[in-house]
Amino acid sequence: MTESVSSPIPEHVLAKKSTEELSEELWDTIIIGGGCVGISAAIYAYRFNMKTLLLSKELGGLITWTHLVENYPGLGSVSGIEMMEKFIAHAKLFDIPLLEEQDVVEVRKGDSGFEIKTKKTVFRTKTVIFATGTTVKQLGVPGEERLKSKGVSYCATCDAAFFRNKIVAMVGSGDSACKEALLLTEFAAKVYLIARGDRLKPEPINAKRVAENSKIIPIYNTKVLSIEGTEKLTHVVLDRPYDGNTLLKLDGLFIAIGHIANTEMLQDLHIMLNAKGEIVIDQQSRTNVPGFYAAGDVVQSTYKQAITGVAEGVIAAFSAYRHITGGEEVVPK
Amino acid sequence: MTESVSSPIPEHVLAKKSTEELSEELWDTIIIGGGCVGISAAIYAYRFNMKTLLLSKELGGLITWTHLVENYPGLGSVSGIEMMEKFIAHAKLFDIPLLEEQDVVEVRKGDSGFEIKTKKTVFRTKTVIFATGTTVKQLGVPGEERLKSKGVSYCATCDAAFFRNKIVAMVGSGDSACKEALLLTEFAAKVYLIARGDRLKPEPINAKRVAENSKIIPIYNTKVLSIEGTEKLTHVVLDRPYDGNTLLKLDGLFIAIGHIANTEMLQDLHIMLNAKGEIVIDQQSRTNVPGFYAAGDVVQSTYKQAITGVAEGVIAAFSAYRHITGGEEVVPK
Repeated sequence: MTESVSSPIPEHVLAKKSTEELSEELWDTIIIGGGCVGISAAIYAYRFNMKTLLLSKELGGLITWTHLVENYPGLGSVSGIEMMEKFIAHAKLFDIPLLEEQDVVEVRKGDSGFEIKTKKTVFRTKTVIFATGTTVKQLGVPGEERLKSKGVSYCATCDAAFFRNKIVAMVGSGDSACKEALLLTEFAAKVYLIARGDRLKPEPINAKRVAENSKIIPIYNTKVLSIEGTEKLTHVVLDRPYDGNTLLKLDGLFIAIGHIANTEMLQDLHIMLNAKGEIVIDQQSRTNVPGFYAAGDVVQSTYKQAITGVAEGVIAAFSAYRHITGGEEVVPK
Repeated sequence: MTESVSSPIPEHVLAKKSTEELSEELWDTIIIGGGCVGISAAIYAYRFNMKTLLLSKELGGLITWTHLVENYPGLGSVSGIEMMEKFIAHAKLFDIPLLEEQDVVEVRKGDSGFEIKTKKTVFRTKTVIFATGTTVKQLGVPGEERLKSKGVSYCATCDAAFFRNKIVAMVGSGDSACKEALLLTEFAAKVYLIARGDRLKPEPINAKRVAENSKIIPIYNTKVLSIEGTEKLTHVVLDRPYDGNTLLKLDGLFIAIGHIANTEMLQDLHIMLNAKGEIVIDQQSRTNVPGFYAAGDVVQSTYKQAITGVAEGVIAAFSAYRHITGGEEVVPK
């Protein structure tokens, strides 16, 4: 019963074309960003019969760094990687070209709307849905750059398993820092949780888990001044003594102190940003530039959740569709 | 690896209590409505460690009437019933009492926030998340009430299979009417699609499917004046002739002409509604009554999609949490 109403098996005609051939088309919309937000926007744009292309550095996005996602309604308890596999499989039900290894260096206005310049070529499109997300913030202290992947990591989901029975620290106090610290306890012998302030700020469910976990030792009101070691990390220097010493011996240092919105390719487009560098959108996911929509972690929003970002991406697709069809009303389901 | 960071297996302590025992509690939030929006709000409220109860007539909601859902990002192509099973399974990961057979007759202000009166008892709560959705609209013509379930139906997903090789009609022109007409063609020999206006207004992907389906015969600019038959439906009377005759012989008549927001139990609460009777909310899912939040099909919104309603429900849970914790900032993930 399902099959005949469902979409025909996609032939991926467009998806099979070369990047060069795809760059010769004029697209109705190009989505920049291959996380769950961009992919969701692509699914909706396709369902509006828009000629849709998605460009990404790599499909997946930051959610794939997440050990466990339990708050995307409908998916239950899944790993970040499993979640992303579901989104990619969903998009592949349809004939949407999802291009990887596309480093977008500039978005500028063009005759038909916008031109998107990558390291390899230029794509032309009537509208843009911008969902590039964020990049993790660095501490910016001596030794950090040099000891990256030599004990310093920004992704516990990726690297926790290398620290079995070791002593590690997590820098940060938000929900991500606490969740990653919890994950680290599954491998490490001891996990210091180094917070600049006097308390942790996770979701309550994770606050409870942290409080009940005897491997986690919070160190409050403390900053990391430098990261030390020659071949690999051996210790960090703190700005106030812990247990009588400003040197803290460590095998691993994980950093989860926030993110920076990825907007560097928009410099000449004069998109309105807030003080944190996030794109300002309205309830229709519109920016100040007509035809240019944005969604997900890269935009200003109170609640940066996968589910709310996905809804913003879906609304961006509606808005793009209205833009190219001259504002025709979309009939709600 | 997953298990130990994940939630403990829930004991459903609260869920195992009787309705009478549950009505003795003071809840942090009560969610009214058991569709995907209400269930999603419950998942988030639980994760904020709020004492959370969900009341519904029956779990599921209108989405279970949908034959095929292909636009809830991450779920791929599923039936409405499969989709709802996923949401219920997700909520059951946690210790949330989801009560069925609760006909809410009144929501009123109380000493600690709100009192929710059902046909059986009264529940007390600090906040309310209102996600009751909508009820299908009736045509309001002679014969409709009398011939319900005797040929007249409001749910093709439920009843299509009774009309194998029969002649049926669908009244309506929106995306739901078109999707249901497509479903009907899998059973019926012929499906008239009776529209008041001069065109159909489905999503483009469904417009294409309708146009390509030879079993569907649109009849434009036409209204049904009455529904006729003694034991069961035999024909309808149209307001202008089709094929030379205002009588149209039918075995089944399906009606998909829209919905009415379910707000009748809010009369004394003075919640602000728009002209269509939908609840007016802001970007935080707040109504004009502090502590009372709303989400989903029952609220005023441009795009009534499952995914956007779920995001509204999630945001309602955030707002309820901030309300009972005195506006403490929630740290985004």
